[in-house]
Amino acid sequence: MYLGIDGGGSKTKAILVDAKNQLLGQGIAGAANPLHGVEQTITSITLAAELALESAGVARSQLSRLVVGAGLAGVNLPDLFEIMTNWDHPFAQFFLTTDLHIACLGAHSGADGAVIITGTGSCGYSSVKGKSLIVGAHGFPFGDKGSGAWFGLEALKYALLASDGLADDSPLKDSVEQALQAKGIDLVGKMVGATSKKYAKLAPLVMDLADQQDPVSVAIVQDGADYISAVAKKLLAQGAQRLSMIGGVSQRLQQWMSPEVVSRLTQAQMQPEFGAVLFAKRELLSLDKTA
Amino acid sequence: MYLGIDGGGSKTKAILVDAKNQLLGQGIAGAANPLHGVEQTITSITLAAELALESAGVARSQLSRLVVGAGLAGVNLPDLFEIMTNWDHPFAQFFLTTDLHIACLGAHSGADGAVIITGTGSCGYSSVKGKSLIVGAHGFPFGDKGSGAWFGLEALKYALLASDGLADDSPLKDSVEQALQAKGIDLVGKMVGATSKKYAKLAPLVMDLADQQDPVSVAIVQDGADYISAVAKKLLAQGAQRLSMIGGVSQRLQQWMSPEVVSRLTQAQMQPEFGAVLFAKRELLSLDKTA
Repeated sequence: MYLGIDGGGSKTKAILVDAKNQLLGQGIAGAANPLHGVEQTITSITLAAELALESAGVARSQLSRLVVGAGLAGVNLPDLFEIMTNWDHPFAQFFLTTDLHIACLGAHSGADGAVIITGTGSCGYSSVKGKSLIVGAHGFPFGDKGSGAWFGLEALKYALLASDGLADDSPLKDSVEQALQAKGIDLVGKMVGATSKKYAKLAPLVMDLADQQDPVSVAIVQDGADYISAVAKKLLAQGAQRLSMIGGVSQRLQQWMSPEVVSRLTQAQMQPEFGAVLFAKRELLSLDKTA
Repeated sequence: MYLGIDGGGSKTKAILVDAKNQLLGQGIAGAANPLHGVEQTITSITLAAELALESAGVARSQLSRLVVGAGLAGVNLPDLFEIMTNWDHPFAQFFLTTDLHIACLGAHSGADGAVIITGTGSCGYSSVKGKSLIVGAHGFPFGDKGSGAWFGLEALKYALLASDGLADDSPLKDSVEQALQAKGIDLVGKMVGATSKKYAKLAPLVMDLADQQDPVSVAIVQDGADYISAVAKKLLAQGAQRLSMIGGVSQRLQQWMSPEVVSRLTQAQMQPEFGAVLFAKRELLSLDKTA
């Protein structure tokens, strides 16, 4: 039995499949981004795995028989990759890679290609002829342009400027104030120390108003979309023949992106957690070859 | 004896003066911004006060005889103002206001006027004919444009974009990489969860390169300076006859600001902690009148 894990800043998905890739069970747990907590990452992975076993009617004690492929956010940082690799895990095997890698494997069923994820965060990844490239994946608040969290942050920045009379008024200010049930300086109180997930909840406000041609919202969405188009061009320049976009804001972003890029987009074939299973199988195979 | 306290995100300054405003002693302690910790704020204020007594050769037990005026960052948020007002303080009297208010009182020796603080954070304040206005003071990362932390954040955002090949190269990238002793994605590892103070340490890099006409740095500094010019115009529009700029980056910002605004700037007359003493004396007087 194989377990595929997709761990991100918001949640962890685990799927249990048999040798023929038949889905046996699924489990969902909390965040698994070691950048924001190694302990929680370990807890989430273990819980998601146990829940997947349970949903398949398999005893939790069978964890130790599983071959696990896990793609996690944050492990593009070499230090975090090492910490998670050294985890004294409860599985038979634990193969670790980035959430980007498994998303790309899933999107193209293991074939070469590229993927852009625009959900709570943003990033791009391509894997062509054994060479991979990560673009973005820098995290909040200094990176992740064009992501849900970034749209939320820009909306809040604008609302604060406008409430000081230092930006043109726009329905976006009212919309942010209504969503947070606060005005002016009290907006700050509502968002102090907010997680990227909380910022991302404001993203649909900007998207909705951009659709209605509110100039302030259009400017924010266009800026984010231009960045994602640039990421896409960078990935295509690596020679990727297939490029997919996944994540919560990817659908709505596309109408603002470069038509040249959008025309190149292909539908993702499988979810990242299935990509994680592909990854585990490949790693196991290469271990067997080495042995 | 009066104690004046200036509490901010980096440190707390306390001065002890006699009834004739003669300086008797000084103390410095850690941060006092209740937004980032009420406990630490209380600890810092108490310690700074005790050190001021000690430096004046007065027993620490005399805390209970002091009339204290304190201007703190963060208490522009109504909830935090209430929390700090309800503090069971060790002083005879404890009069609380914002760090902005005492900076303004100090800068103009208690007269009407306006002040802009551009240090780790940024904000503006005017007090004219009994009406006060706060502009900015929103905090990091969504506000504080034109502050040291904001310059540092923008520098990091740029360096990450450039290391992905998605922004033009510039000496600023090298400068940030050298300061953080890291490149590309490893920059993220160095700055994850960084405080605004840590971001502000990158500000001089941007300022230095802007002075050398590096286009990327000039664009960042000009954007920040334009915002501060807009804040200044907003404050002057309230009728302030005097406007002072204080804080770590205020001197270097001025060459990038609107000449019209810069020509209106006047030197601050006293430090904020002396403004805090003025505030305490006024509050005491108005209490006496009420009684």
